[in-house]
Amino acid sequence: MNEEKILSIIEQIRKKEITDEEALALLKILPYENIDFACIDHHRSIRTGYPEVIYSEGKTNSQVKEIAERLSSNNKVIMATRANDELFNFLKPYFDKITYNSLGRIIIIGDIPNPVTEERVLVLTGGTTDIPVAEEAAITAEAMGSSVDRLYDVGIAGVHRILSKIDLLRSANVIVAVAGMEGALPALAAGLVARPVIAVPTSIGYGANFKGLSALLTMINSCAPGVATVNIDNGFGAGYLAAIINQGKRSL
Amino acid sequence: MNEEKILSIIEQIRKKEITDEEALALLKILPYENIDFACIDHHRSIRTGYPEVIYSEGKTNSQVKEIAERLSSNNKVIMATRANDELFNFLKPYFDKITYNSLGRIIIIGDIPNPVTEERVLVLTGGTTDIPVAEEAAITAEAMGSSVDRLYDVGIAGVHRILSKIDLLRSANVIVAVAGMEGALPALAAGLVARPVIAVPTSIGYGANFKGLSALLTMINSCAPGVATVNIDNGFGAGYLAAIINQGKRSL
Amino acid sequence: MNEEKILSIIEQIRKKEITDEEALALLKILPYENIDFACIDHHRSIRTGYPEVIYSEGKTNSQVKEIAERLSSNNKVIMATRANDELFNFLKPYFDKITYNSLGRIIIIGDIPNPVTEERVLVLTGGTTDIPVAEEAAITAEAMGSSVDRLYDVGIAGVHRILSKIDLLRSANVIVAVAGMEGALPALAAGLVARPVIAVPTSIGYGANFKGLSALLTMINSCAPGVATVNIDNGFGAGYLAAIINQGKRSL
Amino acid sequence: MNEEKILSIIEQIRKKEITDEEALALLKILPYENIDFACIDHHRSIRTGYPEVIYSEGKTNSQVKEIAERLSSNNKVIMATRANDELFNFLKPYFDKITYNSLGRIIIIGDIPNPVTEERVLVLTGGTTDIPVAEEAAITAEAMGSSVDRLYDVGIAGVHRILSKIDLLRSANVIVAVAGMEGALPALAAGLVARPVIAVPTSIGYGANFKGLSALLTMINSCAPGVATVNIDNGFGAGYLAAIINQGKRSL
Amino acid sequence: MNEEKILSIIEQIRKKEITDEEALALLKILPYENIDFACIDHHRSIRTGYPEVIYSEGKTNSQVKEIAERLSSNNKVIMATRANDELFNFLKPYFDKITYNSLGRIIIIGDIPNPVTEERVLVLTGGTTDIPVAEEAAITAEAMGSSVDRLYDVGIAGVHRILSKIDLLRSANVIVAVAGMEGALPALAAGLVARPVIAVPTSIGYGANFKGLSALLTMINSCAPGVATVNIDNGFGAGYLAAIINQGKRSL
Amino acid sequence: MNEEKILSIIEQIRKKEITDEEALALLKILPYENIDFACIDHHRSIRTGYPEVIYSEGKTNSQVKEIAERLSSNNKVIMATRANDELFNFLKPYFDKITYNSLGRIIIIGDIPNPVTEERVLVLTGGTTDIPVAEEAAITAEAMGSSVDRLYDVGIAGVHRILSKIDLLRSANVIVAVAGMEGALPALAAGLVARPVIAVPTSIGYGANFKGLSALLTMINSCAPGVATVNIDNGFGAGYLAAIINQGKRSL
Amino acid sequence: MNEEKILSIIEQIRKKEITDEEALALLKILPYENIDFACIDHHRSIRTGYPEVIYSEGKTNSQVKEIAERLSSNNKVIMATRANDELFNFLKPYFDKITYNSLGRIIIIGDIPNPVTEERVLVLTGGTTDIPVAEEAAITAEAMGSSVDRLYDVGIAGVHRILSKIDLLRSANVIVAVAGMEGALPALAAGLVARPVIAVPTSIGYGANFKGLSALLTMINSCAPGVATVNIDNGFGAGYLAAIINQGKRSL
Amino acid sequence: MNEEKILSIIEQIRKKEITDEEALALLKILPYENIDFACIDHHRSIRTGYPEVIYSEGKTNSQVKEIAERLSSNNKVIMATRANDELFNFLKPYFDKITYNSLGRIIIIGDIPNPVTEERVLVLTGGTTDIPVAEEAAITAEAMGSSVDRLYDVGIAGVHRILSKIDLLRSANVIVAVAGMEGALPALAAGLVARPVIAVPTSIGYGANFKGLSALLTMINSCAPGVATVNIDNGFGAGYLAAIINQGKRSL
Repeated sequence: MNEEKILSIIEQIRKKEITDEEALALLKILPYENIDFACIDHHRSIRTGYPEVIYSEGKTNSQVKEIAERLSSNNKVIMATRANDELFNFLKPYFDKITYNSLGRIIIIGDIPNPVTEERVLVLTGGTTDIPVAEEAAITAEAMGSSVDRLYDVGIAGVHRILSKIDLLRSANVIVAVAGMEGALPALAAGLVARPVIAVPTSIGYGANFKGLSALLTMINSCAPGVATVNIDNGFGAGYLAAIINQGKRSL
Repeated sequence: MNEEKILSIIEQIRKKEITDEEALALLKILPYENIDFACIDHHRSIRTGYPEVIYSEGKTNSQVKEIAERLSSNNKVIMATRANDELFNFLKPYFDKITYNSLGRIIIIGDIPNPVTEERVLVLTGGTTDIPVAEEAAITAEAMGSSVDRLYDVGIAGVHRILSKIDLLRSANVIVAVAGMEGALPALAAGLVARPVIAVPTSIGYGANFKGLSALLTMINSCAPGVATVNIDNGFGAGYLAAIINQGKRSL
Repeated sequence: MNEEKILSIIEQIRKKEITDEEALALLKILPYENIDFACIDHHRSIRTGYPEVIYSEGKTNSQVKEIAERLSSNNKVIMATRANDELFNFLKPYFDKITYNSLGRIIIIGDIPNPVTEERVLVLTGGTTDIPVAEEAAITAEAMGSSVDRLYDVGIAGVHRILSKIDLLRSANVIVAVAGMEGALPALAAGLVARPVIAVPTSIGYGANFKGLSALLTMINSCAPGVATVNIDNGFGAGYLAAIINQGKRSL
Repeated sequence: MNEEKILSIIEQIRKKEITDEEALALLKILPYENIDFACIDHHRSIRTGYPEVIYSEGKTNSQVKEIAERLSSNNKVIMATRANDELFNFLKPYFDKITYNSLGRIIIIGDIPNPVTEERVLVLTGGTTDIPVAEEAAITAEAMGSSVDRLYDVGIAGVHRILSKIDLLRSANVIVAVAGMEGALPALAAGLVARPVIAVPTSIGYGANFKGLSALLTMINSCAPGVATVNIDNGFGAGYLAAIINQGKRSL
Repeated sequence: MNEEKILSIIEQIRKKEITDEEALALLKILPYENIDFACIDHHRSIRTGYPEVIYSEGKTNSQVKEIAERLSSNNKVIMATRANDELFNFLKPYFDKITYNSLGRIIIIGDIPNPVTEERVLVLTGGTTDIPVAEEAAITAEAMGSSVDRLYDVGIAGVHRILSKIDLLRSANVIVAVAGMEGALPALAAGLVARPVIAVPTSIGYGANFKGLSALLTMINSCAPGVATVNIDNGFGAGYLAAIINQGKRSL
Repeated sequence: MNEEKILSIIEQIRKKEITDEEALALLKILPYENIDFACIDHHRSIRTGYPEVIYSEGKTNSQVKEIAERLSSNNKVIMATRANDELFNFLKPYFDKITYNSLGRIIIIGDIPNPVTEERVLVLTGGTTDIPVAEEAAITAEAMGSSVDRLYDVGIAGVHRILSKIDLLRSANVIVAVAGMEGALPALAAGLVARPVIAVPTSIGYGANFKGLSALLTMINSCAPGVATVNIDNGFGAGYLAAIINQGKRSL
Repeated sequence: MNEEKILSIIEQIRKKEITDEEALALLKILPYENIDFACIDHHRSIRTGYPEVIYSEGKTNSQVKEIAERLSSNNKVIMATRANDELFNFLKPYFDKITYNSLGRIIIIGDIPNPVTEERVLVLTGGTTDIPVAEEAAITAEAMGSSVDRLYDVGIAGVHRILSKIDLLRSANVIVAVAGMEGALPALAAGLVARPVIAVPTSIGYGANFKGLSALLTMINSCAPGVATVNIDNGFGAGYLAAIINQGKRSL
Repeated sequence: MNEEKILSIIEQIRKKEITDEEALALLKILPYENIDFACIDHHRSIRTGYPEVIYSEGKTNSQVKEIAERLSSNNKVIMATRANDELFNFLKPYFDKITYNSLGRIIIIGDIPNPVTEERVLVLTGGTTDIPVAEEAAITAEAMGSSVDRLYDVGIAGVHRILSKIDLLRSANVIVAVAGMEGALPALAAGLVARPVIAVPTSIGYGANFKGLSALLTMINSCAPGVATVNIDNGFGAGYLAAIINQGKRSL
């Protein structure tokens, strides 16, 4: 703990256990070594209260295991995203509480926290092929302590489907809208309710979809206010953002 | 007339008014000189029954006048697209029946034909800024003999607006959907009724709209079947296509 | 039926079988629950009279079978697009009338309807490699009740080939023009006859073709009026649009 | 009010003031005419409690005045975005309470509401040229009832500047990060605190910036979770989204 | 032969063997049926004097064999481009004179013609990885009757290499310059000698080369006059063009 | 003259007028100082026999005059491309023989040479708006000593127009095909005759033409062999290349 | 000074002038408040020894004046880049030593330092239109204390020009190569000498140059090692980088 | 040796062992044959003092062996980049001193030189997946005689990590910054210290990263001066450039 370390230096100064020069040397490196940052390693992990996250793609099974073991010592819950069956079977013997959501390709080690708010996240998809990305978002938000509703296959080409569920939209605090092809779902949702809509383009589609670029541009150009967009297929990013919006500052 | 010309050559042969060599020479150039093409000059004009069209942009007032005078000798109605007030005032003294639709930037010389079918074309826009392109489409279709309904400012961000007019959509034979920004209107329309939807992306929008490219990609990627797309801001092309679909083969 | 339901509520009100509050509750959900939409699920299926369509790519054989069985209960004909031999062999034992067109990669379950109009759709290709996409279009239009003519390998690099078949072009009500490489075929066709031309870019080609983008841009920029474009390789979309144009409003 | 209208119809039925047919006719149009949508016209306006918004660009001064007068009858505050001095001077005589923020190019008609929450929005910019877009965001959020802090010119090229203000970042509930050139500011902010970061690329920059495309791509590719992106230069969209996140569901 | 056919119709007319109506019918189809086009099927083959060409990629071995057999009946030499060892071994038993150039991936069936001119084509490459495309060009030109010199691995990064061979450049009538990566070789060559330079971008390179797009743009932007560009990796097209330039009109 | 200079050094050596060291110093700089390059300054000028060329765009009138005066001392003919009326009027007083082609924006100072060959260059355009670029090509080729035929407004949308002039195509030795919009003219021409076709995309068009990029891609993807492409609107480059092809090696 | 401040806190602790809590509070903010960064404001200025830089574009004359006055109090030399005559005339009365290089669009206030090393920077351009960008680079390097040689108009289309000056290349320590159009100059230079080459693409060119994108891609794809690229037209960036390379660590 | 050759020719002239004509012939080819270029073959190799380099990708094991054997005769150290285990095992028996760095995919044959300067190169990466490219850079610089420090996984999303190592940055003479995803690391580094930063975008990332294009654009748009960019994943190019900067002119 940072404060303790500083206090101990102060004490050493007072007790004259260290010279001025030694104190100066210790304090000069303080800025960088001991910064009380919210997160020790923010790149892959998330600050206290949220699960640690391992991005599995491009890592060997052993590497994931090793990282997970190190993290599990002082974290209640760990997520491994972009996982697969093989990785799950590899990890299973090493951890007590471990579950795998194959649709969302996420392994959870430890206990998913109880929801920290009564507000809810709603995850929408335009088609059935968008579901893996949607599940990545949904499970991420759940693992971070949000309650999540799912409403799939309600794309623009059959507008009656989303309208028939408008109560679900109205009861949501944050909406994640996942869509490929022409990607108009987020604008449709933002036109129906005035809550934040996190748009996730997917690489689903063919021809001039250009691996999600077309859907990305559609979402960025949304004429309905209240929409912001994350990277193509980035379900994790959307779920993370939905959770921190949904839980507000109180959760931190 | 082609047949007459060929018959006259046959007669000349029979009457021995021409030698074999002369007949051969005449007949050899037949393929190219006398082809009974639907249109003499298809690039800017349209075959019999449809108005001749002059694309005014990039032409001087005098050039437009000259072409219009030449065409008006054997055409009942002539359209000048991408026109402006100045051109209209320039042309007015030279033609008897001449009107100008400033919204659609089209000058009509002559009489708009009576509708050739009871079926109707419906022109939609996402926003009010798309109206000039929509009017170009609507007036083109009217000048070609179609009845046209207009329904403007019914974009995706307020889906109730188009739903409240669903009877108009259902009564249409062909739909022209004009939209900029995210360009989702054609897919919305095609999801509501099973009639052809001609999508017109507009260069309206800002930021990552890239002068209509984003809307174009959205429309090309439409997941609702029944949609096909014309060039950015190409109201004329959409209106022309709508008219020939609406009037069927009977009109030719 | 909607009207009946509303009338029954009116009756219940008159007969005082329900309170004001109960009537209010029933009527408030009316908008979404009972909308008399043309299609129940438009995304993958097509309204009465047209076959139901399953997009097979990305679905397991079992998933396709399950959907097909559910749809076949109240549909005369079902299409599975982007199919393959393996899927066909898998499905064969489960359905009585089932055929597979391997060129167009389409499985048909049930009876193709008799043509609903004497007008005909003409499908053109620029080269032989464009044929699979063209067949997808042709069979789709046939399965929806249109008569289809085919004219393949008549691209711009040998313009005499399409000219020698000009009667076929003149007899067509709707033209589908499928082409890769430089993609000039739709403009050529639209320059020859004044009927709707649906342009389908294909991903055929190499180098700077960029998987069909070049052909797509060519078609969108067509200077001949009467052309509109669908997505790269989207034979189904072109065939569907050709059929609804060809059959007119009468068919619905 | 919707419920009242339905109740009045129920009463008319009970009192037999209308026939069954008349009741049916009234109730059939209910879905579209009377839907209790969050917003009557969501495209340009915002639901009760939030100001109505007029996008001024591309509208004449008279058009803006006319719309503003119509809206001001039943709205406490109206915003006109992308305004300029000329428009402000034109409008001034017609409205009592009217102010103009020239940096953010926003005219406010009426009273800015008191903040509805103690939480705060923080608006950051990478450079001084990004300030107009940032002010558009800040004033939008304020006009919608949020308290806003501003921290400008703290881009990545001098990382000590943002670090020296880390307390401001930590006290924010929502962050709007506006940046052009390489656009790395949102990722930097998201790496420092675990609150939602709304990224706004600006068209500031030269050469390969391509009018903001480069900054947009950077932001979409952010490796720090918690970032979502709006359109290039879309300060209004970012401010609107920040406000609805900041105020939570309570405010609606 | 066309002239003969027309003459025979003329004779039939004179001899009254056919009626006017019959003559008209025969002559009306003349334009399309009998046009004396330079090439019967120009798409894949090349007119008399030049070899017929089969583009092998995407064709089965049997298809290539079948086409080759049909063509070999009235052609002295046939080329199959984009071939491979397997295809060559498959074809060998069926043809007497057959050779395979594995570097250029071209199979030649029949006798390569003697050069029709003393002028020479020079094929350059920037690096060794460009050689397959260069060989496709060289062998194509040779098979069409041109003498070809080769000068490989003389790219811009070691400008002394091409300078040391300037006599070879000066003696060339046409130059084909094949290069990937930054693609500056054609401009370098065009700056040294005033003869036509056909630029062939290759997909060689990595990173921002974008499969040859970068080299293509460089070549199109060449500031040295005398350069024109063919498609990425299109060695055949460059070799064909070089040959028809080199041989002049005399050869046709 | 190079040889003379070397011979004089040899003589100085023999006569011992210079020491070994002096001889070495003189000979060491030989490579760069005295290289017998075809052209002294190839960037803007063209070797002996061809006119010197000044690219006027971006130069002041005085700069053009100065360069022209310097060049005219030892050149029979000088061209200034991308010129305008103002420049012509400025230059007129200073030069005896000076003419201005306003369509092609080229000023000629001196005498256009007599044609050096009986072969002819044919310049085609798709539309009338492509004519300025075509004239730049035509006049450049004429100024370099080629005879040029012009055939304008023969684009793909009215294929009968080019067919009716097929004799002109057949008599050409080199074809320059200038086209905007979909840019299919070069492929059409190359499909009709087996002579070199130099394709010039123009920036004419609107919407998704992207200032000529679409036409450029079409031309690069041409499926007809015999086509190579120069930069957008680069009439000079096409005319220069046509001339050196047309005149063969004899002219140099 | 940082160390002094820390020492004074240590002393206060020792002397018990502050409590533990007060010491903790002081030390906790140390990281951000007192970091001994090389530069106080690195975004627009440059650390001691180098001139302060003002990017003038987009700033009013008064703003530039104000910033310049503030900076001149403790800087020997200040540069204003992207300046123009009007700005220079505005600033002249306010500063003693002020000069304007109109070619490079740079105003210098104060004394250009004497060179800090004998090594030299060489600035090359492909054409004459690249000179403004080159001058921006050259003057920047000079103002930072480097000696600069200039060698202009030595592009790839006339390779003999750069070869004739090879001694200049060999004597350079760092090369800045500025080029538009096809942008091959940096690779040519890097192929001749093994010193760092900083490539600057310019927006010079037309057609498919796409405002410098083509030249940028060429330079990034350079096959000669030793080349790195800065933004389009970014002469300042290249000159700055050249100076810090040229002067080595000794100069800081 | 060049000078010797020229001197021998001078001697032959003096001794009249050759005639004037013979001397002329010998001296005329001098420019190209005997130019004293810095490098004989610069494309793949590097001049004396630096190791020869073989780019292994796309070469067979035998080809690499053959080239390596030829080069090893007169070079102390040879590098084979983009190598793999298989190639290393293949080469091992043939060379005495051979080592393989599998992370950087580089094989070294011979002895790495002792550092030629006390200055150091620092290689940074944003994440762990960027390490292979970074190692390619680091080992290249070492093999060329530079001392290299490594600091990996210090990306923008956790800015405290790079700050805690600021002394390492300050002690570096040249920095290589390798990053994928949003690619902001080079700007961060250049904002901290005023030494040259060579930016290497990597193809690491997903979605809208477009195989490194996004990172490349970010780096090119860097607002911090002192940054220049090499091709995507081009670790070798960055390491080479870092070494020649680090070692200065003295090393050549």
